[in-house]
Amino acid sequence: MKPDFEKYSDGLVPTIVIDDNTRQVLMMAYVNEESFNLSMKTRQTWFWSRSRQELWHKGATSGNTQAIVSIDIDCDEDTLLMKVIPAGPACHTGHTSCFYRTILPEQAKEE
Amino acid sequence: MKPDFEKYSDGLVPTIVIDDNTRQVLMMAYVNEESFNLSMKTRQTWFWSRSRQELWHKGATSGNTQAIVSIDIDCDEDTLLMKVIPAGPACHTGHTSCFYRTILPEQAKEE
Repeated sequence: MKPDFEKYSDGLVPTIVIDDNTRQVLMMAYVNEESFNLSMKTRQTWFWSRSRQELWHKGATSGNTQAIVSIDIDCDEDTLLMKVIPAGPACHTGHTSCFYRTILPEQAKEE
Repeated sequence: MKPDFEKYSDGLVPTIVIDDNTRQVLMMAYVNEESFNLSMKTRQTWFWSRSRQELWHKGATSGNTQAIVSIDIDCDEDTLLMKVIPAGPACHTGHTSCFYRTILPEQAKEE
């Protein structure tokens, strides 16, 4: 089974990356068919950078590669979930996860 | 702080939904500005359905709404992470999560 790269006009499939040990959501990025195939083959995360419009081997320059433990696909085959063991922070800011800011905080619980 | 709805031409921001208790990734969907504002205001998940091209209040027909505990935003402000308490399965198939199939299994560990 492969993701449906024809489904949307850009040929991109959103991919959620979580830490296989902590289950923390680390980042979200897109794969095109080429980066998906590279991820499957090398068991490291490869994406398509929408801003740079180029193939992106995560960690190629920073050293913070992500070893893929497993890949899940969603019900309608247009989203992926990669479980990884990261070599370092996922975020270019140095944070473990790109999601390090809260815009809607948890409400105080009523007693 | 709000997501950057102008960043990509479709005005949509991908949103990862996880169970606040189990931390399981439940689904991924898109918000446009209107559904984002509704999610913030009502503390239930609202999305933009790309396939149906309409506003989508998750659970409106199935009853499987998702109460929002908190919302995080990523480093470049173009992806959201919603932590929710689901009233039922996230997936239309009845699975707890839309990611119920593995396409790249974990490798057998070497002894």
